[in-house]
Amino acid sequence: MNAVDSTTFEMDKKLGTKYHERFTKFLKMVQEEDLTVDGAMTDPKGDRGLAPHQQADPDLFVHVVEKNDKGIVVRGAKAHQTGAVNSHWILAMPTIAMSKEDADYAVSFVCPADADGVYYIYGRQSCDTRKMEGGTIDVGNAKFGGHEALMVFDNLFVPWENVLMCGEYEFSGMLVERFAGYHRQSYGGCKVGVGDVLIGAAALAADYNGAAKASHIKDKLIEMTHLNETLYSCGIACSAQGSKTASGTYLIDLLLANVCKQNVTRFPYEIARLAEDIAGGLMVTMPSEKDLKHPEIGKVLEKYLKGTANVSVEDRCRVMRLVENITLGTAAVGYRTESMHGAGSPQAQRIMIARQSNLEHKKKLAKKIAGIKE
Amino acid sequence: MNAVDSTTFEMDKKLGTKYHERFTKFLKMVQEEDLTVDGAMTDPKGDRGLAPHQQADPDLFVHVVEKNDKGIVVRGAKAHQTGAVNSHWILAMPTIAMSKEDADYAVSFVCPADADGVYYIYGRQSCDTRKMEGGTIDVGNAKFGGHEALMVFDNLFVPWENVLMCGEYEFSGMLVERFAGYHRQSYGGCKVGVGDVLIGAAALAADYNGAAKASHIKDKLIEMTHLNETLYSCGIACSAQGSKTASGTYLIDLLLANVCKQNVTRFPYEIARLAEDIAGGLMVTMPSEKDLKHPEIGKVLEKYLKGTANVSVEDRCRVMRLVENITLGTAAVGYRTESMHGAGSPQAQRIMIARQSNLEHKKKLAKKIAGIKE
Amino acid sequence: MNAVDSTTFEMDKKLGTKYHERFTKFLKMVQEEDLTVDGAMTDPKGDRGLAPHQQADPDLFVHVVEKNDKGIVVRGAKAHQTGAVNSHWILAMPTIAMSKEDADYAVSFVCPADADGVYYIYGRQSCDTRKMEGGTIDVGNAKFGGHEALMVFDNLFVPWENVLMCGEYEFSGMLVERFAGYHRQSYGGCKVGVGDVLIGAAALAADYNGAAKASHIKDKLIEMTHLNETLYSCGIACSAQGSKTASGTYLIDLLLANVCKQNVTRFPYEIARLAEDIAGGLMVTMPSEKDLKHPEIGKVLEKYLKGTANVSVEDRCRVMRLVENITLGTAAVGYRTESMHGAGSPQAQRIMIARQSNLEHKKKLAKKIAGIKE
Amino acid sequence: MNAVDSTTFEMDKKLGTKYHERFTKFLKMVQEEDLTVDGAMTDPKGDRGLAPHQQADPDLFVHVVEKNDKGIVVRGAKAHQTGAVNSHWILAMPTIAMSKEDADYAVSFVCPADADGVYYIYGRQSCDTRKMEGGTIDVGNAKFGGHEALMVFDNLFVPWENVLMCGEYEFSGMLVERFAGYHRQSYGGCKVGVGDVLIGAAALAADYNGAAKASHIKDKLIEMTHLNETLYSCGIACSAQGSKTASGTYLIDLLLANVCKQNVTRFPYEIARLAEDIAGGLMVTMPSEKDLKHPEIGKVLEKYLKGTANVSVEDRCRVMRLVENITLGTAAVGYRTESMHGAGSPQAQRIMIARQSNLEHKKKLAKKIAGIKE
Repeated sequence: MNAVDSTTFEMDKKLGTKYHERFTKFLKMVQEEDLTVDGAMTDPKGDRGLAPHQQADPDLFVHVVEKNDKGIVVRGAKAHQTGAVNSHWILAMPTIAMSKEDADYAVSFVCPADADGVYYIYGRQSCDTRKMEGGTIDVGNAKFGGHEALMVFDNLFVPWENVLMCGEYEFSGMLVERFAGYHRQSYGGCKVGVGDVLIGAAALAADYNGAAKASHIKDKLIEMTHLNETLYSCGIACSAQGSKTASGTYLIDLLLANVCKQNVTRFPYEIARLAEDIAGGLMVTMPSEKDLKHPEIGKVLEKYLKGTANVSVEDRCRVMRLVENITLGTAAVGYRTESMHGAGSPQAQRIMIARQSNLEHKKKLAKKIAGIKE
Repeated sequence: MNAVDSTTFEMDKKLGTKYHERFTKFLKMVQEEDLTVDGAMTDPKGDRGLAPHQQADPDLFVHVVEKNDKGIVVRGAKAHQTGAVNSHWILAMPTIAMSKEDADYAVSFVCPADADGVYYIYGRQSCDTRKMEGGTIDVGNAKFGGHEALMVFDNLFVPWENVLMCGEYEFSGMLVERFAGYHRQSYGGCKVGVGDVLIGAAALAADYNGAAKASHIKDKLIEMTHLNETLYSCGIACSAQGSKTASGTYLIDLLLANVCKQNVTRFPYEIARLAEDIAGGLMVTMPSEKDLKHPEIGKVLEKYLKGTANVSVEDRCRVMRLVENITLGTAAVGYRTESMHGAGSPQAQRIMIARQSNLEHKKKLAKKIAGIKE
Repeated sequence: MNAVDSTTFEMDKKLGTKYHERFTKFLKMVQEEDLTVDGAMTDPKGDRGLAPHQQADPDLFVHVVEKNDKGIVVRGAKAHQTGAVNSHWILAMPTIAMSKEDADYAVSFVCPADADGVYYIYGRQSCDTRKMEGGTIDVGNAKFGGHEALMVFDNLFVPWENVLMCGEYEFSGMLVERFAGYHRQSYGGCKVGVGDVLIGAAALAADYNGAAKASHIKDKLIEMTHLNETLYSCGIACSAQGSKTASGTYLIDLLLANVCKQNVTRFPYEIARLAEDIAGGLMVTMPSEKDLKHPEIGKVLEKYLKGTANVSVEDRCRVMRLVENITLGTAAVGYRTESMHGAGSPQAQRIMIARQSNLEHKKKLAKKIAGIKE
Repeated sequence: MNAVDSTTFEMDKKLGTKYHERFTKFLKMVQEEDLTVDGAMTDPKGDRGLAPHQQADPDLFVHVVEKNDKGIVVRGAKAHQTGAVNSHWILAMPTIAMSKEDADYAVSFVCPADADGVYYIYGRQSCDTRKMEGGTIDVGNAKFGGHEALMVFDNLFVPWENVLMCGEYEFSGMLVERFAGYHRQSYGGCKVGVGDVLIGAAALAADYNGAAKASHIKDKLIEMTHLNETLYSCGIACSAQGSKTASGTYLIDLLLANVCKQNVTRFPYEIARLAEDIAGGLMVTMPSEKDLKHPEIGKVLEKYLKGTANVSVEDRCRVMRLVENITLGTAAVGYRTESMHGAGSPQAQRIMIARQSNLEHKKKLAKKIAGIKE
């Protein structure tokens, strides 16, 4: 929430508002009561070619529909909200830099996740219904999982003490850029952890298939590790190069944070490809858990799905299903598609990299070395 | 079936067997009666580090357990059999080159798909149960689909007139190499067709999102097309460079057929990644078809999932689900994992490329130009 | 010259000109007398953002400056003319599609390479002066080489019988597109031949270094071969898919020819990178040929540059210099930069791929499968 | 020199030698007198398949040939010594981990660069002789440059106070691993600086060609920056994750330092490829500086090599030659081949990544999530 902290601080300083004060109070509360907060930024956006105020339906971006002395009423929705349903509070923020015409859309606030006027429509994931089949193998990961939801603000009333931005469109760009920066940094840790599990699962699959000694298998595991650690390095670097803002919170290096996320839109796909290579075709052709447990069919599968002598068929199937889960199943939503679009789609990072790259300075270096007079 | 034709021809010629005669009769029959045949090659293989006769369980590779004047009895299984359940006949072949010790495993035969002693255990695919939910949207592709099965030969009796190889281990390598060659060629067509659909789906998604005019979107569609047409080129090239065998059937260029398949183990993954990039996160966060059709919730989704004004939310969802189907769902099994392992895993092609590359000739060229005396 | 043949044929047919007749006569002459012809297309272009008639200097594109009953006078230049200095005749063609305003620039003609009014300014290449040092090792390739030149038309008079286009701007696009297509096809053969030599040189270097048995070396040679044969496949495919034009000459498949060249702008760079990996650092740190032959220093180098016992230091140096020649030296101009820009730069192919990809048809396929009504 | 510091510290501690004391004294001296030191590690190695003591010629690795009460006599050579000729002192170290049989090869020492018994054979680079042509354009970089040399120890006498290892083979592996680690870290800075210059040169070339506004050009500059900053991130990360050793010096994170260098063996090649793409073919076809300055020919080139109106042809040529210098010329030796082999060839990093990746821990994570009992 550092992005909000530094932005509300600058709003208070420049405009004499009380946003930072309110936010600090909110922050203190959630920390003391150990509450989870869903940072809600992404609006449905409708036609990508149009600004908020140009959309056919004004609600395609969250906006203020009423203001009174008690507070504001907002309408709209936030899409792709990962973990929204298991959060205590919502922290809503604008999703793009805005102009004067979009002032009503420059709104940020906090509200309880179960406030009147907020509801959720649960998204479905690849293989989601396997969780309802009652087993522990075919789900791939029986212990953990996630979800996304469409969060709807249906004329939600927000009292002034919970409003963190209301019309100050000139700050929406700063908030988005900083929030996205922190979010892009975080992927250098979160996706790397999943990567470690996938590398481990692929290595196990190789053991169970009796292929672990093959030099091409070893080399693929090295490549997966190399790519995963490169992502980790980018996460560390944009943090290590961070600097203190006027508000006292630290801001990550924006260029390197965008470089980090840009790599996250690529390497997990290659790591997943290599995992599928190592796992083998059985991952997508094996029969269901119910067949494995079947009194007759189970015996046949015990016989024919046997890998190396010292490994049970069930364990072999478990690791296959884990690889399937991360590359094709419910976890693939987080490991692949969210690596692509979470915290902003690839092109969003490229625009930031262009802005932050200081090309003019690089041209100066080249001119000097080439002996070109300015 | 050209691989079997040319191999049985050479067996007859060298050993005076009647295999080719039998095969030609079989071929005539299936053509006249317009029957489909499942080419069954891949054995479960057990411990990849061990030869057939070294496996803990002798049945981990299909083998002859009995011979008499009427025919042979075989036991074992064939794994990953795509389309097996909708074929009329089975054409079983050995799965690797074999040595004298593996003579009992050098067996090839045909049998009706529903013969006594043959049964199938159906494999499950990512999102397979969506087909049982009764809708036409969430399945992504309501019209077509595929499956894989484990095919079990449980002491199957095969009369001599249906036996095409029985102990001639010295020919199993030739059969595998040729069959794999034709199979690897075919991927230069089959996967390219799926690629065309995915490119079209991504282009539609861009239209519906209102992003089609963005230069990075156009460029990604060009890249997808470029990669897909490169695969097609490899399929065409190994066919155009084919040559006539002694049996009269044409053999594809083995080097280029392996180069073709090797590219198929890479490019569909990148094409899929670009499709996910263009489609956007909605592909994996949208609610279920049942919510879309729900009297109340449906209206909310109609409102907030709206893309460009002239496109219905349902159509937008349909194209999202199609991209999901090919990149994560039931079709991803065929487009991604089968592209990786079907017709042999990547390393199998690299071994063939090494064998066929005639490195010594290339060294001679280099020596000549560098002025190095032999 | 098929591109000119099919274009002049259509010009005659549509406009009743005599261009095709003239060209056929010219073609017969060069074939009978076995003469080489330089196909001169690329103009200097000046500011890439401006059309021919908009350039500050009208001569930045070749154009007609005078017409009379005997013939035409042309002025301008053709850049990057590979092999121009060792050709007998020049066949000049326009370099881009043109509009009415550029009619004077829509000019094509043939002339003897040593005609009055034509001269050449020789381009320099990386390491070019090594050819003047008198040795056979440091040059890398002592037998063969190439060059580029700037070809200047300094008020060149061309008699009407040698004029093949003069103002018919509406055909310049067709000529460029077809000529580029054939040229892009040819790279699927020419660069693959160089690739074979480089693969052989890298394999030799590995032998001489005593590293040939390392699995990563073997795998890199396989990858180099795989990439090189993929290029070859594209060259074969666009030829095999060619079709007969009205003029009787065969036109390659334009989409696949552009796909071929696009891959040529990528794979030779990776093949070169892998060759540098296998060769080792000695390639760029070894002393000069003169040191090798020096009575005292030579002995020291004999001692310390020794690789495997059975290989002479001179031979080891020869193969290092050949790899250097193709990756950094005179041949790198042809193998790397010309692979990038010859027959059109990468973006030129991407534009053609977009034009030829029939995206609307692919969208139709996707709609049909997704169940979207037109 | 931290690697030597921490290693000599551990040698003193474990063996009670005086190596660390000596090294500290040496370090103090070079710092006070501001002297440059060449860290000399790489031996010629002869047959890569053989250990030092197995080589046909014992001198293919530096070794002790005599010991007396005054000091030691060493013989052998160090290859690929970048900047050796402009250093004041040499710090020689063993080049690989060694076994008891190689004890005489486990030798480290310092000596003045001009000591009796040391001499250098200068290596040649691509385009090196352009520096002798007297111009400032064709050299690409008229101000700076580098060199490599073969450093020969011809029965060099080293007094005991300058000996830092002499027979302690069990420490050679530690020294090599640590020295290589620091060296691999440094590439995350050094090559990134060159990358900045190349990105700037490519951007200038685009300006001068009038192509800077094309979206594909902008995108290629973004990609170059992204790749370059990824390398920088890896350099920062392995430093930020460093830890203090017993000697008091800090040791970089060995895994991330190897990941850093591994990326350096790839990305500069792609950055160079993109620079060649943006620069255009003129880079390798332009005439020499002497032609540019020629009274007659110069005028013709002024006319036809003109890019955008406001840029002089000379400046355009200067930037082309700078790009050529870094991608094909003298600087390419440092930017490409040294990125590949300096501080260890790619496979050396992969071996270290495998060693440091803690695969067993990753397998444990996978087992836990898949529900597999240990």
